[in-house]
Amino acid sequence: MLNIAIVGPGLVGGALVEQLVAHAQSARFASLPIALVGLINSRKMAVSATPFAATDLAAWQSSLLGSSAQPADLTAFADTLATLPSPTAIVDCTSSDAIANLYPSWLSRGLHIVTPNKKAFSNELSLFREIQKLTQTGPSVFHEATVGAGLPVLSTLNDLIRTGDKIKTIEGIFSGTLSYLFNTFSAPGATQQFSECPDPRDDLNGMDVARKVTILGRVAGLDIGTDTLPVENIVPEALRSVASADEFMQRLPEFDAHFAQLNQDAIKEGAVLRYVGKVDVAGGQSSVKLAKYPLDHPFASLKGSDNIIAFTTERFPNPLIVQGAGAGAAVTAFGIFADLIKVAAQFDRSAKI
Amino acid sequence: MLNIAIVGPGLVGGALVEQLVAHAQSARFASLPIALVGLINSRKMAVSATPFAATDLAAWQSSLLGSSAQPADLTAFADTLATLPSPTAIVDCTSSDAIANLYPSWLSRGLHIVTPNKKAFSNELSLFREIQKLTQTGPSVFHEATVGAGLPVLSTLNDLIRTGDKIKTIEGIFSGTLSYLFNTFSAPGATQQFSECPDPRDDLNGMDVARKVTILGRVAGLDIGTDTLPVENIVPEALRSVASADEFMQRLPEFDAHFAQLNQDAIKEGAVLRYVGKVDVAGGQSSVKLAKYPLDHPFASLKGSDNIIAFTTERFPNPLIVQGAGAGAAVTAFGIFADLIKVAAQFDRSAKI
Repeated sequence: MLNIAIVGPGLVGGALVEQLVAHAQSARFASLPIALVGLINSRKMAVSATPFAATDLAAWQSSLLGSSAQPADLTAFADTLATLPSPTAIVDCTSSDAIANLYPSWLSRGLHIVTPNKKAFSNELSLFREIQKLTQTGPSVFHEATVGAGLPVLSTLNDLIRTGDKIKTIEGIFSGTLSYLFNTFSAPGATQQFSECPDPRDDLNGMDVARKVTILGRVAGLDIGTDTLPVENIVPEALRSVASADEFMQRLPEFDAHFAQLNQDAIKEGAVLRYVGKVDVAGGQSSVKLAKYPLDHPFASLKGSDNIIAFTTERFPNPLIVQGAGAGAAVTAFGIFADLIKVAAQFDRSAKI
Repeated sequence: MLNIAIVGPGLVGGALVEQLVAHAQSARFASLPIALVGLINSRKMAVSATPFAATDLAAWQSSLLGSSAQPADLTAFADTLATLPSPTAIVDCTSSDAIANLYPSWLSRGLHIVTPNKKAFSNELSLFREIQKLTQTGPSVFHEATVGAGLPVLSTLNDLIRTGDKIKTIEGIFSGTLSYLFNTFSAPGATQQFSECPDPRDDLNGMDVARKVTILGRVAGLDIGTDTLPVENIVPEALRSVASADEFMQRLPEFDAHFAQLNQDAIKEGAVLRYVGKVDVAGGQSSVKLAKYPLDHPFASLKGSDNIIAFTTERFPNPLIVQGAGAGAAVTAFGIFADLIKVAAQFDRSAKI
């Protein structure tokens, strides 16, 4: 049995709890090798050596609000978890730098970590290396959901690396928002203006994609970081200092002609525009940028807000490609859940993968 | 440490040994948690409680030919393996029905199985169910390489199922040969005749694809089999009884007009022809057949001899797609190697996945 404790049980944590409960209640499964023993948000926490009842969702949710909840204290929370007799994993569902900085102390105390939080793997390289070192002999860190949510991206990369394949490039469309934007805007016959697409502000500067490229690159052995990676910020210069979303969206049409021109140039060449992150293991030219792809390229036929990731390796000169929904609470929770089963399988043969 | 013993060390087994040796010799890895302790082919065998030296490939290969080899005896081979103190996995690299029938006896004796051999999972349903039952509490069976070689197909399907997702359909192009044939023949502007494509005889009858659809369907919980699945045999009726490859290829041009017509009909509709296997979990309409796909469908832009597999589920209404090389010794050996690391990780934390 693997104990789990959720830090920051919001949208994704809630979806995870829902999936755990549905699993526990389903006649399709013999038993769930995972028990929830702790929840903590910024105000309150509940933690117990006795797993919370998994019989209904209300019970799980009320733990944080009910009479057993105490004021939040992350140190006391980890202290309690570290003393539990069964293996225990912390599920960090925040996107907090401060929480990511706690991973080494958690690992040193034997706590496993499963998380969709990109920070520990894309902030300072020293933190990433420290975590990597601690997991070599100690507990596990699984973070499939940091890239492409539940898509089998990091598991595939790890399988390739651990079996000795040589990674050449990893190229992909890693932002659901920007995927949707360009799949809709840059397609033969599309009539939308750039500014008619949903508010892309948080993604247009490329930092979210840069984090994902950094994570993949580091797992593949590169010493890269968001500070050194060339990242194309496609927010028009004049709009970068605009503070309000309203003003941003109001002024965005001024730049429709600019984007329409880029798009027409691409379409004229039988290509489309896509915002792509690339890890260049062999050539050292990793980047995040807007680029053109011919219509018969897999990136060109992407639909909706899907992600796509192409691994070009010694064994796969024609790339191994994974694509599908790379954002959203349910698919992110799926990635966490699958990781938790892998941690549980290290201790419990009935949970075997 | 996981002991492994290879049954039928031919092309795929040879590629696996090469990958294991390269891994053991590489400075990139601390150590290989896998030791080769046995090899058997149809004539000879070598099996030992002391792992064969992994220092060079010649040593591994000569084990079967050298003075330590004995006449092949599968019973004695398994007897020796079952008495080893460390966990042991048999790697079945044959495509033999007889070997597949031995899996239950191996599992009963605590031996794990990793294999690209489709037979145990696509022959009689009773054999599949018996194996499934034995692995619930006993040793593991991993067979990623039975569908799409090393592509993460079965691991992804298992992750989806074990976390409680509901599989609706699994649709794909599962034959490298037929993938190449139609990707080359059925494309806008293609000028090849059907008969100019490489000898597709072994795949045209659809049985190889039917086996893969059967495996995916059974893993997804369906009681299907190659005997009940509707399979479109695209070998022209008049050629089915032709025995020699020469005569087959000589007479195939008689049917070029037939295939050209099918193809033109598709192209006229803005579509291409693809030979597709489908597991229909919800609707019960699983099938293997030639079908038309519009040009912007992921199946239409497939290149070379790649496989593509699309999982449509409750969490992925827009399918999760995996594509890439689905045949060949190196990528098949990769799938086996990755599976072996997963078995090893159950016993050895340093091999953790």
